[in-house]
Amino acid sequence: MNVTSTLQPAALPEIVDTNRPEDALRGDMPNGFNPSAISHLDATAQRHIARRLQLISPSYRLFYAEPVKIVRGEKVYLYDDQGNDYLDAYNNVVCVGHANPRIVDAITRQFSTLCTHTRYMQEPILDYAEALRTTFHTSIREGQMMFTCTGSEANDLAMRIAMHYTGKTGVIVTSEAYHGNSHLTSSFSPSLGSKALLGPYVRTVPAPDAYRIPPSEVGRRMADQVALQIEDIRRHGGGLAAFIADSFFSSDGVFAHPTDVLAPVAEVVRRAGGLFIADEVQSGFGRSGTHMWGHERHGVVPDIVTLGKPMGNGYPVAGLVVRPEVVAGFGEDMRYFNTFGGNSVAIAATQATLDVLRDENVLDNAQRVGAIMLEGLNALARKYECIGDVRGAGLYFGVEIVRDRAKKNTDIATALKIVNGLRQRRVLISATGPDASVLKVRPPLVFGANDADRLLTELDTVLAAL
Amino acid sequence: MNVTSTLQPAALPEIVDTNRPEDALRGDMPNGFNPSAISHLDATAQRHIARRLQLISPSYRLFYAEPVKIVRGEKVYLYDDQGNDYLDAYNNVVCVGHANPRIVDAITRQFSTLCTHTRYMQEPILDYAEALRTTFHTSIREGQMMFTCTGSEANDLAMRIAMHYTGKTGVIVTSEAYHGNSHLTSSFSPSLGSKALLGPYVRTVPAPDAYRIPPSEVGRRMADQVALQIEDIRRHGGGLAAFIADSFFSSDGVFAHPTDVLAPVAEVVRRAGGLFIADEVQSGFGRSGTHMWGHERHGVVPDIVTLGKPMGNGYPVAGLVVRPEVVAGFGEDMRYFNTFGGNSVAIAATQATLDVLRDENVLDNAQRVGAIMLEGLNALARKYECIGDVRGAGLYFGVEIVRDRAKKNTDIATALKIVNGLRQRRVLISATGPDASVLKVRPPLVFGANDADRLLTELDTVLAAL
Repeated sequence: MNVTSTLQPAALPEIVDTNRPEDALRGDMPNGFNPSAISHLDATAQRHIARRLQLISPSYRLFYAEPVKIVRGEKVYLYDDQGNDYLDAYNNVVCVGHANPRIVDAITRQFSTLCTHTRYMQEPILDYAEALRTTFHTSIREGQMMFTCTGSEANDLAMRIAMHYTGKTGVIVTSEAYHGNSHLTSSFSPSLGSKALLGPYVRTVPAPDAYRIPPSEVGRRMADQVALQIEDIRRHGGGLAAFIADSFFSSDGVFAHPTDVLAPVAEVVRRAGGLFIADEVQSGFGRSGTHMWGHERHGVVPDIVTLGKPMGNGYPVAGLVVRPEVVAGFGEDMRYFNTFGGNSVAIAATQATLDVLRDENVLDNAQRVGAIMLEGLNALARKYECIGDVRGAGLYFGVEIVRDRAKKNTDIATALKIVNGLRQRRVLISATGPDASVLKVRPPLVFGANDADRLLTELDTVLAAL
Repeated sequence: MNVTSTLQPAALPEIVDTNRPEDALRGDMPNGFNPSAISHLDATAQRHIARRLQLISPSYRLFYAEPVKIVRGEKVYLYDDQGNDYLDAYNNVVCVGHANPRIVDAITRQFSTLCTHTRYMQEPILDYAEALRTTFHTSIREGQMMFTCTGSEANDLAMRIAMHYTGKTGVIVTSEAYHGNSHLTSSFSPSLGSKALLGPYVRTVPAPDAYRIPPSEVGRRMADQVALQIEDIRRHGGGLAAFIADSFFSSDGVFAHPTDVLAPVAEVVRRAGGLFIADEVQSGFGRSGTHMWGHERHGVVPDIVTLGKPMGNGYPVAGLVVRPEVVAGFGEDMRYFNTFGGNSVAIAATQATLDVLRDENVLDNAQRVGAIMLEGLNALARKYECIGDVRGAGLYFGVEIVRDRAKKNTDIATALKIVNGLRQRRVLISATGPDASVLKVRPPLVFGANDADRLLTELDTVLAAL
């Protein structure tokens, strides 16, 4: 897919690798298990895979060359049916830990009391909206909330609102962006792979790859690219509805810095009449440790903020905050009812999660343990040539694996060897980036210093054995 | 919106009414509360409305001229903050009753144990898929499952699969169909109102209105209309991906009979290379009392069945069952991952719901109490001229209110008076149909004979006072 080719200035260095194992990107999923290669698995696992292939659609992918069977979770640990513990350094959904008793209690209490929808008056949904708004530090704190069940639904709805507001359908995203699995959101999620069709007025811009572009130039270059793509949309008869980005650029390879990138982009977008949508499904709810919201690290004021994954610590709840003037027309023309979105239990779960994040100083922990992790990963980078770059903020890290530090060429085979090596040592991470060459480390925010030690020690062992 | 006008044979009798109160269809929602008319409410309610307008988007609608404040639910009763009980004859989501202890237990137990996603091996999701498949009686029981969080997501995904399989984008629905709130599903949900844009190759056909069309002709006429719309899509350069329908035609006004309608339609659809999608979000999980799945009442074999609302008795879980050959290509080209869809707790909730439906003979109850209800409603129809038609199956009823029985012209004002009159007497129903003139009665499936009595008695009182 090369939709942006005609208008790209100053091409990036050649980073596409040729040592990509045949099935490494099966269905374009980094770290996906290939169910047709099962001979290395034990009989029970083979039976499970066969049964799975029969009963659920082939669109489902398992993680790891040797998939993990999980039966229990607690804090930052997952357990298999033999009682072995796995260190979970991947699942951001359970931000305050697996089976957090305060969240479980809140959900249980609410489920036993009332589980119903937004067409009756209920105070808690308003209390939550009020509480959430105070976590923002710009004018978006005057925004209005809407509730969905998934981040995909939140992004789908955000884009419907943007299209209604602007009367346009153009969308600009980064070249490996992922914003959801609905028909609309998948049309602006190029990371789903070349078989997933992009919308006619969807354009991509390169990610702010500060490993390969001088950091001081990243912001200006991205703004320039966005301007060019806006012009390309116009040239093809369309117009810009919105630019949408995850401020961690997760599926592009985790680019947490620099943080002066999105403000200049937003300026260009607004000049063209488009909206700026901050997708906080990954970067929100304190992931960075220093900020509740990733976009605030960039000093940008969004028109819409979308929320998801960690919002209810595992309970299916997501949503958005939108400037009132942006949603006024949509609200008048279009009712929005989501049977489960914002229902009594969703609100109880998300309120409890917000309470725990605050009461237990979870962001401080993410900042403190994040610093330990970053230092440890950098130490490993000094020790092992294959680590080209270590980046991240709070408890979200990208560790880029390269074949040659000078050439910065990606090494997917080694990256997947490391991911699977860690899995054999019962530490769960995954891979990301356009070539799946970036180790993706994104533990629950209650990850402790001892957990960081365990991860770093095991990673050292795996790297030494390469 | 009159997209089908050029090709309609044999127009229906004129049923559009002119006595439609200005705000009755505000945002095209039947029985929606108008937040700009609050002077009749008490101070607390007024404050709540004002706060709501500030904190959540204006797309949200409350029910009833005097919205209900709910704080607790149990079995088929909802309670306000004064402890008053409301008979819930509307909420199908809690199919086995509000706060059903078996479901609450299953959810609590699973949340305390493990809440994680489909990329690890877990047995319960396969056990559930296996169990659910056995509830079908045609070849769709060989289908494969996919899991989402909402019915909208299920229908969005079903249509993505249909479009991938057929390479076409045309969709045919009934003229007041509702299939979801995502960008794609709203594009084939004309009941969202004229401001919600339909897709370029979306066409509508009249609902199988057996109150106005001789029942013996309904099936043939619908098949003919579908054939004409397929031709119209072709004439405009498109092709048919799918026909999708809820076999109760809920938002069209609840047409539970006749049941020989969908099989001839499916034949026409397949001849054109399209798929038949049975939307079981409303009609599924035993709503009809006699059948677990609404489409089986019509003797039709679907290519995809979509599931939602009652699936987890309030827990956000939905999904679909699809013929393996239909999803094979999609599965190869497209990974599908839904963070919360099919996760451990969703499966526990939906398994428990299925268990209760079976163990406690809930369908038998729906059939038995449904018969009492139907008899009672028909008795009221003999007593009150304004009831033009009573229809339904199991525990789903449409009671059409008309100004003149001979003319069968709809009477939205009286219908809303009845809905609001019942609400004042603490019985909760709503209205549906193109003119919101059809009382929509759709209680939890554990509705008892005593509950039917209470509803019928209160309805009698309200009708007498008109």
